[in-house]
Amino acid sequence: MKFTIEQTDTKSKARAGTITTDHGTIETPIFMPVGTAASVKAVHQKELIEDVKAQIILGNTYHLYLRPGMEIISQAGGLHKFMNWDRPILTDSGGYQVYSLSDTRKIKEEGVKFHSHIDGSRHLFSPENVIDIQRTIGADIIMAFDECTPYPCDHRYAKKSMEMTHRWLNRCIDRFNNTQPKYGHQQSFFPIVQGSVYSDLRKISAEYIASQNCEGNAIGGLSVGEPAPMMYEMTEQVCTILPAEKPRYLMGVGTPANILECIALGIDMFDCVMPTRNARNGMLFTKNGIINIRNEKWKNDFSALDENGTSFVDTYYTKAYLRHLVINKEILASQIATLHNLSFYLWLVGEARNKIKDDTFSEWKRELTPRLSERI
Amino acid sequence: MKFTIEQTDTKSKARAGTITTDHGTIETPIFMPVGTAASVKAVHQKELIEDVKAQIILGNTYHLYLRPGMEIISQAGGLHKFMNWDRPILTDSGGYQVYSLSDTRKIKEEGVKFHSHIDGSRHLFSPENVIDIQRTIGADIIMAFDECTPYPCDHRYAKKSMEMTHRWLNRCIDRFNNTQPKYGHQQSFFPIVQGSVYSDLRKISAEYIASQNCEGNAIGGLSVGEPAPMMYEMTEQVCTILPAEKPRYLMGVGTPANILECIALGIDMFDCVMPTRNARNGMLFTKNGIINIRNEKWKNDFSALDENGTSFVDTYYTKAYLRHLVINKEILASQIATLHNLSFYLWLVGEARNKIKDDTFSEWKRELTPRLSERI
Repeated sequence: MKFTIEQTDTKSKARAGTITTDHGTIETPIFMPVGTAASVKAVHQKELIEDVKAQIILGNTYHLYLRPGMEIISQAGGLHKFMNWDRPILTDSGGYQVYSLSDTRKIKEEGVKFHSHIDGSRHLFSPENVIDIQRTIGADIIMAFDECTPYPCDHRYAKKSMEMTHRWLNRCIDRFNNTQPKYGHQQSFFPIVQGSVYSDLRKISAEYIASQNCEGNAIGGLSVGEPAPMMYEMTEQVCTILPAEKPRYLMGVGTPANILECIALGIDMFDCVMPTRNARNGMLFTKNGIINIRNEKWKNDFSALDENGTSFVDTYYTKAYLRHLVINKEILASQIATLHNLSFYLWLVGEARNKIKDDTFSEWKRELTPRLSERI
Repeated sequence: MKFTIEQTDTKSKARAGTITTDHGTIETPIFMPVGTAASVKAVHQKELIEDVKAQIILGNTYHLYLRPGMEIISQAGGLHKFMNWDRPILTDSGGYQVYSLSDTRKIKEEGVKFHSHIDGSRHLFSPENVIDIQRTIGADIIMAFDECTPYPCDHRYAKKSMEMTHRWLNRCIDRFNNTQPKYGHQQSFFPIVQGSVYSDLRKISAEYIASQNCEGNAIGGLSVGEPAPMMYEMTEQVCTILPAEKPRYLMGVGTPANILECIALGIDMFDCVMPTRNARNGMLFTKNGIINIRNEKWKNDFSALDENGTSFVDTYYTKAYLRHLVINKEILASQIATLHNLSFYLWLVGEARNKIKDDTFSEWKRELTPRLSERI
């Protein structure tokens, strides 16, 4: 993997770059649609490429490990072939889902014992086997196994957890260094900064993670319920410590406004279920604000879904039509809204990149940000 | 509307023709995907055109009347504009859904009083208002209001019901003749033959319907649970009575084998929820038989979904991948399976047409039919 910074913004820490992988190039800053279980819900892979213009997608180790399982993924020749997606893929470590989805989980030094949320079967995720699983999935970028602390979380627990995450990191790196990619393409490993909302811990963690000299670095444990200013403060602090010449990935963030703010702080990569999950509930993100298409006011609004939108659905369908489909629980509603939202997110990061290269990012961001959160 | 027969098969009653409407031409025999509530479930309109090659779709009056309702459809300028579909549309009369979906319904000479299956609200469908509703929907082909008798149904009830359907037909025709299309394109009216599985009644009904000299004629009350040979017998009998120079539409039929058999009997138009509904349960129709993709045997079959298929999904995705999506209840599963099945149905009728024109239809049908129902 190669990361090149093409332009650094003069009025913020934003930067425009490219990440080159064996599955092609990613232009940063970038948003990664979440393809939980080998599918970005309600979207064809072809549409992700041709309409959404996705450059990299995220797969969830936890979900893929449970279904279809590693035997099938391995027999298919990895996730790229299994789902017919030949652009880059990043997989998370499975940690986040273990904590949020599984019925019971026991976190020990060895790893995390958990019960599947599907059938209750018992499993263990350890730093070592999570690396092995991600080798089998074959993602271009694979993540360290960490504990994502909840919010709020007391300092004592946050510190203890962070220290274990660091010890787990050593084990992940050992395993990563002692194993090989399985399918002929390179895999890069990103460690994750933890430390909850505590500056002292974030400093320790960021310095520890930076010292590992990995190909890229991630920030975890944010966007878990803390106020946005706190998220920005932690992100800013960590970004000043993480090396500038490596890509920085802020996990699980966020709203369009969150993304612009964190680009300004020096983040290069984002993922979030918001554009896909909220789409399925009828929420549309646009450059003029947020539309709840279920609202009565749209029932006879026959204007284009989003006249400024970049997806084909934006001018193909009307607001009244999408509202009807959502109210009627039609599958096509999820298809349309998801295509719209993902296209908007990809437009947003692409436009941020253009503005960084033009050196007009800060003005553009200042003008756009207040509008993004309006309810229209 | 204009119907031209281009070729009549020499070894069967099959014919290849074209129906010309103000929204374009339909090549017959044709299958009409069912777009219940202004959406063919899980398929974009663009995909219906570009991938499925649908030439006409069916809308359900009952569903559209309840949601989005006639006010919205009217304000949109009709169903074509509401859903952005500018090819032909046929609407059923709503009768079938009233009988099958509404909680309670009372059939009287005046019409049918029913409760909405959505909110329990009370409504009346009469021959007159069903014509008015279909004028407002703006379908190119609109259907008479009839009673679709269940199977089994005693002769006495079937006769009484048929006679009322005939009286309702007179009222439909009066209303149709005394009203105008609303959106500048012509609408054609098709009456419906009833009579359950009784030859004497089917004869009376077909003769009555034929005598009305409408632009096309439909056969209803079949494919409601009766054995296939009985359906073929009724269809054959009615086809000999209905005028050859008008299109014949067999409502609600059926499996691929049913369709080939009824093409051979002189049917030009078909609709059925089977390819769309069964797709959502993981059943795929192919020229080599029926696949239940949920079966364990497909879990590591990485061959193309259907190497003979005409949809892009057939070679883009594998059987193992679709099985995973179906088991995982992913929306994309419905999208893929529906595109496959509809493309197969449209291929089937298109190929039947080609074979009729080549005068090889009967041989082709004989060779293909046994395979179509195999479980593979």
